[in-house]
Amino acid sequence: MVDCVFCRIVKKEIPSTVVYEDDDIIAFNDINPVAPVHILIVPKTHLKNLSDVSEEHAPLLGKMLLVASKLAEEKGISEKGFRTVINNGPEGGQIVMHLHMHLIGGKQLGHKMG
Amino acid sequence: MVDCVFCRIVKKEIPSTVVYEDDDIIAFNDINPVAPVHILIVPKTHLKNLSDVSEEHAPLLGKMLLVASKLAEEKGISEKGFRTVINNGPEGGQIVMHLHMHLIGGKQLGHKMG
Repeated sequence: MVDCVFCRIVKKEIPSTVVYEDDDIIAFNDINPVAPVHILIVPKTHLKNLSDVSEEHAPLLGKMLLVASKLAEEKGISEKGFRTVINNGPEGGQIVMHLHMHLIGGKQLGHKMG
Repeated sequence: MVDCVFCRIVKKEIPSTVVYEDDDIIAFNDINPVAPVHILIVPKTHLKNLSDVSEEHAPLLGKMLLVASKLAEEKGISEKGFRTVINNGPEGGQIVMHLHMHLIGGKQLGHKMG
C-alpha cells in the first residue's frame, strides 16, 4: 500500500530502529514508547488487522508471537515480564491500519487492558 | 498441572462459559470482564506464558490469534474493533500462570497499553 506508513518502513522509505527482520516480519522501536521496551512487530505483507486474516496466515501470526518471545528474551524482560497487544479497528484503538503487535515491558505494567 | 486453574477448566473440573473449543484450544468468558466482550483464549497444554514457547509452538500460537479473529467476527466486533492482550510474568500483570490471550471489545477501548 503506497500510503501505508508501515509498508514504507518495510521498504525502508521511512527510517526506523530495526531490532529484528526476516523474510516475513520486521520489528522496530515504537517512536512513542509507553515503557522502556516498546517494539512493534509487523508483518511485511499488508494486512489491515486481525479482521483481515484467514487460515493461511496462521504461520505468520504464530511467528509474530514467537518473535515477541525472542525479543523479550533479548531485551532481558522475559522473566520479569512483558505484554503483547494487538489493537484492531477504531474501538480497539488501532492508529496505523497495518497489522502490528506491541511488545511492551521494562517496568511494572498497569492492570488496565480495556 | 494439578493446581493450575486453567488446566482444571480445560478438564472441566471447574465450570466456565465455553465459547470455542477444539483439540488444542479452549476459549471462555472472563469471570471479571473489563468490557462487554472479554474472552480468554487458552491452549489446552500447560505453557506458563510466552517465555515458555519455542518454534514447535508456532502453529498453536497462530491458531490462538486466528481464534481471536473468528470470535471477534462471531461477537459482531470485528469491524468496530477489539484488542488482544497477552500478559506475561509479574511485570506484565499475568495473574494465572497458564498462557492465555485476552480478547476484549464491545466498547471504545482506552489507549493505555502499559
